[in-house]
Amino acid sequence: MHTLKDLQSLVSVAIDKEINQLYQTEPRHLYEPIGYALAVGGKRLRPAMVLLGYSLFDEQVEKALPVATAIELFHNFTLLHDDIMDGAEMRRNNLSVYKKYSENVAILSGDAMSIMAYNALLKSNSEALPAMIRLFSQTALEVCEGQQFDMDFEIRTDVAIPEYLKMIKLKTAVLLACSLKLGALAANASEKIADQLYDFGLNLGIAFQLQDDLLDVFADQDKFGKKLGGDIVANKKTFLLLKALEISGEETKAFIHEWIDKKDFDASEKISAITGKYNELGIKEITERSIDEYYQAALNIFNEIPLADETKVGLLQLANLIMNRDH
Amino acid sequence: MHTLKDLQSLVSVAIDKEINQLYQTEPRHLYEPIGYALAVGGKRLRPAMVLLGYSLFDEQVEKALPVATAIELFHNFTLLHDDIMDGAEMRRNNLSVYKKYSENVAILSGDAMSIMAYNALLKSNSEALPAMIRLFSQTALEVCEGQQFDMDFEIRTDVAIPEYLKMIKLKTAVLLACSLKLGALAANASEKIADQLYDFGLNLGIAFQLQDDLLDVFADQDKFGKKLGGDIVANKKTFLLLKALEISGEETKAFIHEWIDKKDFDASEKISAITGKYNELGIKEITERSIDEYYQAALNIFNEIPLADETKVGLLQLANLIMNRDH
Repeated sequence: MHTLKDLQSLVSVAIDKEINQLYQTEPRHLYEPIGYALAVGGKRLRPAMVLLGYSLFDEQVEKALPVATAIELFHNFTLLHDDIMDGAEMRRNNLSVYKKYSENVAILSGDAMSIMAYNALLKSNSEALPAMIRLFSQTALEVCEGQQFDMDFEIRTDVAIPEYLKMIKLKTAVLLACSLKLGALAANASEKIADQLYDFGLNLGIAFQLQDDLLDVFADQDKFGKKLGGDIVANKKTFLLLKALEISGEETKAFIHEWIDKKDFDASEKISAITGKYNELGIKEITERSIDEYYQAALNIFNEIPLADETKVGLLQLANLIMNRDH
Repeated sequence: MHTLKDLQSLVSVAIDKEINQLYQTEPRHLYEPIGYALAVGGKRLRPAMVLLGYSLFDEQVEKALPVATAIELFHNFTLLHDDIMDGAEMRRNNLSVYKKYSENVAILSGDAMSIMAYNALLKSNSEALPAMIRLFSQTALEVCEGQQFDMDFEIRTDVAIPEYLKMIKLKTAVLLACSLKLGALAANASEKIADQLYDFGLNLGIAFQLQDDLLDVFADQDKFGKKLGGDIVANKKTFLLLKALEISGEETKAFIHEWIDKKDFDASEKISAITGKYNELGIKEITERSIDEYYQAALNIFNEIPLADETKVGLLQLANLIMNRDH
């Protein structure tokens, strides 16, 4: 049985190999930035999820490495282009691609990366390949839609919670869901179990994003990688802010909007003012309940998946990893 | 028998339908710019080539419309992102997408467009779909490589003719070649004939791009859509310029480089100075010979294609259309 950590290591080795090749491929100005983007790319959670989905049905997880690589290429392509759009100069303590090279490089290398994701997928010799490509391509388009909704929300003042949940589903959760399902399909799992894995990943993905929103305000500062309250300072339309605006009376609403509209302010003053309102409104508890609902929904699906407990254990490791945020 | 004009009309109707749908799809800020990009998108040459390739083997060309749409989506995606990279504000007398909307919109809508190209392709129910996706995806990556080489050449002073030919092959010719071959594969043509069609399109594509270089300097101004000499003013590394640098002596070379390096100049003076050198060197005739070589290579392949002359006639119409440039 492969642990999730094993799978992450396995996929890391494969992607490091890919990176080395990219550094030697012409045209260099196209492929080197792709290698760089992959190299700063983090914990390989999504490609490990592909191997995990595969490992439930077949021990020879190496066979799913092209599929795992496809997901990692696609995920990092979205980060690469998102960083241009968001003007994000840093990515995991490294310069983002457009900052290190140029915007043109980041656009074109990103384009190539998304095509390379398909090419990697096409290396799989699974019989289910057509279904896998359809799922992947559908998911890829959904991720673009999610990014567009996210950008739309930046300039809207009337975002409702269901719209927000739809956005994070598209932008974040579908790719996690797709990763598990692709792995399962690559191992010729039945459509039914593959769909259960998809739904498991989808609920976990939404819980994960809601927790991301929560931790930005209410994490233990010592354990949190960055400064608390970044979303508040940036007026990011998180679940917390939208829920606060939804349930508060006119006076509190006006108070929050006043802080949102302020151009000139002290960051820690703004953080403590908004956090104070969140505390008054019980936003932390409301958000935790919402996270727990999605988490429980994932666990319910987990229980229904008709596989032996010792086979399924990796899925629980995944849920813990995602929810404990030690990644 | 379908004429090439018929096929262009057929594909135009299908793409207009697609455009109408796009204008009604949410998120609007993602899909409307895609509709706009397709709407300003020209003569539908490449998707008509898909139908042409299909029509050689099956009269029911409607079956290849999803494949044709895929090619048109992909081609316009490359234009969309190229316009950002080149700072090109206009596209066929309309504002380019990044200028009409914004750069972020153009990046994300372009990304979605390239994914939608795959999704369109996936609608084909040809048995050859896996081979078709492989060809398409390989070609798409080559087009990115071609664009990168083109950008590299802008800042290089030592581009050799073989490198230039490789660049235009990747940037322009492979997509024309791929269009014909995809159509043939969609109609379950043999790999051998499909490859012949690919090579026919490839040679035609290179001849087409060389002619594009030639006409920029030596076209009949009355028939030419834009002002002559634009490439000379912009120091574009065309076949003409590279060939002139290759064959000229030190003195002429120095003369040309002097004009290239000038920051402050009168455009028509520069055009007439460089054109004068081209005339001295016989560049027009050299380029015409080169175009003719690729054109003849295409015709030789045409003659070898084991289909009846009345079936193949569309390919000759295509060659004429491409070489007479009335598109």
